[in-house]
Amino acid sequence: MKKIAILGSTGSIGTQTIDIVKEQKHAYKVIGLAAGKNLEVLEQQIRELKPQIVSVENELLAKELAIRIDDVRPRVEILYGATGLITIAALKDVDILVTAVVGTLGLLPTITAIKNGTTIALANKETLVAAGSIVMDLAKQYNTKIIPVDSEHSAIFQCLQGEDMSSIKNLHVTASGGTFRGKKKTDLIGVTVEEALKHPNWSMGAKITIDSATLMNKGLEVIEAHWLFNIDYDNIKVVVHPESIIHSMVEFVDTSVIAQLGTPNMRVPIQYALSYPNRLINQQKQLDLIELGKLHFEKPDTETFQCLNIAYEAGRTGGTAPAVMNAANEVAVQLFLEKRIEFLQIEHIIREILLRHTVKQNPTLEEVIEADLWAREQILNGGEILCKQR
Amino acid sequence: MKKIAILGSTGSIGTQTIDIVKEQKHAYKVIGLAAGKNLEVLEQQIRELKPQIVSVENELLAKELAIRIDDVRPRVEILYGATGLITIAALKDVDILVTAVVGTLGLLPTITAIKNGTTIALANKETLVAAGSIVMDLAKQYNTKIIPVDSEHSAIFQCLQGEDMSSIKNLHVTASGGTFRGKKKTDLIGVTVEEALKHPNWSMGAKITIDSATLMNKGLEVIEAHWLFNIDYDNIKVVVHPESIIHSMVEFVDTSVIAQLGTPNMRVPIQYALSYPNRLINQQKQLDLIELGKLHFEKPDTETFQCLNIAYEAGRTGGTAPAVMNAANEVAVQLFLEKRIEFLQIEHIIREILLRHTVKQNPTLEEVIEADLWAREQILNGGEILCKQR
Repeated sequence: MKKIAILGSTGSIGTQTIDIVKEQKHAYKVIGLAAGKNLEVLEQQIRELKPQIVSVENELLAKELAIRIDDVRPRVEILYGATGLITIAALKDVDILVTAVVGTLGLLPTITAIKNGTTIALANKETLVAAGSIVMDLAKQYNTKIIPVDSEHSAIFQCLQGEDMSSIKNLHVTASGGTFRGKKKTDLIGVTVEEALKHPNWSMGAKITIDSATLMNKGLEVIEAHWLFNIDYDNIKVVVHPESIIHSMVEFVDTSVIAQLGTPNMRVPIQYALSYPNRLINQQKQLDLIELGKLHFEKPDTETFQCLNIAYEAGRTGGTAPAVMNAANEVAVQLFLEKRIEFLQIEHIIREILLRHTVKQNPTLEEVIEADLWAREQILNGGEILCKQR
Repeated sequence: MKKIAILGSTGSIGTQTIDIVKEQKHAYKVIGLAAGKNLEVLEQQIRELKPQIVSVENELLAKELAIRIDDVRPRVEILYGATGLITIAALKDVDILVTAVVGTLGLLPTITAIKNGTTIALANKETLVAAGSIVMDLAKQYNTKIIPVDSEHSAIFQCLQGEDMSSIKNLHVTASGGTFRGKKKTDLIGVTVEEALKHPNWSMGAKITIDSATLMNKGLEVIEAHWLFNIDYDNIKVVVHPESIIHSMVEFVDTSVIAQLGTPNMRVPIQYALSYPNRLINQQKQLDLIELGKLHFEKPDTETFQCLNIAYEAGRTGGTAPAVMNAANEVAVQLFLEKRIEFLQIEHIIREILLRHTVKQNPTLEEVIEADLWAREQILNGGEILCKQR
């Protein structure tokens, strides 16, 4: 039985991870849970899974949770804030830490777990985007496994089983194209948050759904793939595949291509990250290509959706550039979700912040975090300038 | 450097194998070649590759070849007939025997090599169709590797690298649908040999192209897959995929599907069989899904093309049934190529012979060969009855 801790247990990936754990009771035991503000869902998870330790966003929430679960025995230790996340990440008897918090919040706990040698089921893509070099160096140094949860990276990871990394020619990351695939710049003026949140294939959190609509999600994934698989940006290609059936592909030097396919369902890659190197039987929907009839492929429209190229540029620039891009994107998406900026301003803000930033190469972890904070402050303090179009 | 012998060196697979060997000069040395009647091509191969030993179909051809290559030094040993094939298969210093002869002719040499522990690059599907149980038992007993060359089985073999065989749920063998895909029974009355030989995607030998048009090729592949991967017939599915880009797929118990893709090009699976477990750089055309735009999938039309179901039935029946079916098919296809029967008579003949056959379970190799010969004689001697429609 594998012992699991989940950071971000009440989010989309977190709740699906818990569904899997409940389905595969014989295989997993949850001992730690960290959530943000969603006490209702967290309380239910605590009652069902009886973890040893939990964490919430702040002290107030921790106190409220303590009252809610006062009757739960054995008593559950309740922590909060960044310290809470890190404490759970540092638990020595955890076999797999699922890092499913959104944003750079996941960085420090992930590093803590890596230093402990705890296998990471990585669902927090910002960790590698912001600090890929530092994180992968540490993983190597501490001989810690990082297993991707994102469907694209899980696909590549699965395609690479039994293969020699030196035989890789190109990675082909597939993209649904997002909510606004096929639209042009002029069509995107004035689109609403509600429109942007209607993803054609995947049911995901709000932030990632907007990232999918801007193609920034694919940009983040390209950078993540670069670090996870140690592949040059020139050898990471993005192909738009609206049905999201082929989750990604590896092209080898002999021109043979290995792909991983399935229905668009995060349960399968989450379960694979937990069960790796084994595969466990589940009740998910089987792929039926005959029923589907067709699969489509097209070039990403990088003129309309500039975030993909911005991400390639930031990735190639390296140093603190991806961290700044990622932080700017997080804030811009948040501002869009709060209806304070237009959809098209997201890419403008990111580009503007990157232009203002003086990139530092080979940054320390502190410098990455500093660059991240700098980017956030630039937008929030310079809001008037950046958001002038509204 | 791997030492190679090729049975069927002047055929489609044989000549492509030699192209690869010439492209990868540093990696391979050909020491034995066996051909049928094509002395012109064989002579050229001997001059280029300087094998130690060659074989042709009969004594007369052997004598003619001796005259043709009288000037070649060091002298090449020339053999002929079944003994020649078996002698080359038995060469002790061969690392890989490529069995690319067509038909049950490949059976005895393959068994000889298996008993020697020589790795088999298996391009002769009739070997496993006729005597799968015997061949696979021997391979296990002598711990001999059998690496499939057929693109579909190579695809499955590649998809299974690094995976646990017990995690397989279904194999999905793709089929182009052949020359007559979309046609109905009435459209097939009176089709000519020339029409049947126009395969949409693959450039192959005549026999396999006709097998592809009748769907018997897929039937043979299903039986071959059953033996190669030890999977029940119920778990081997055929999906028609007209573009022949996905060469086959493995569905695992967790619903994840791994597929192998590429342009329709036999060089890649042939090279993989030679280089396995490594992959070697080559100059073949890269797959471009964006250029292709679409991939299609449909159910095989087993009402129009009955050979696929005949093969499933024969496979499930087991014993001598697949050997008889295969022999009947070989003769029927030959009769069609000689314009002595109609296209639609192929499936009628096979079904008729299977009806007449008394299946023997757990046959010995002699019994398999006897059943094969029986089927051939039934058709050739009962020609008047079977071919009455013409």
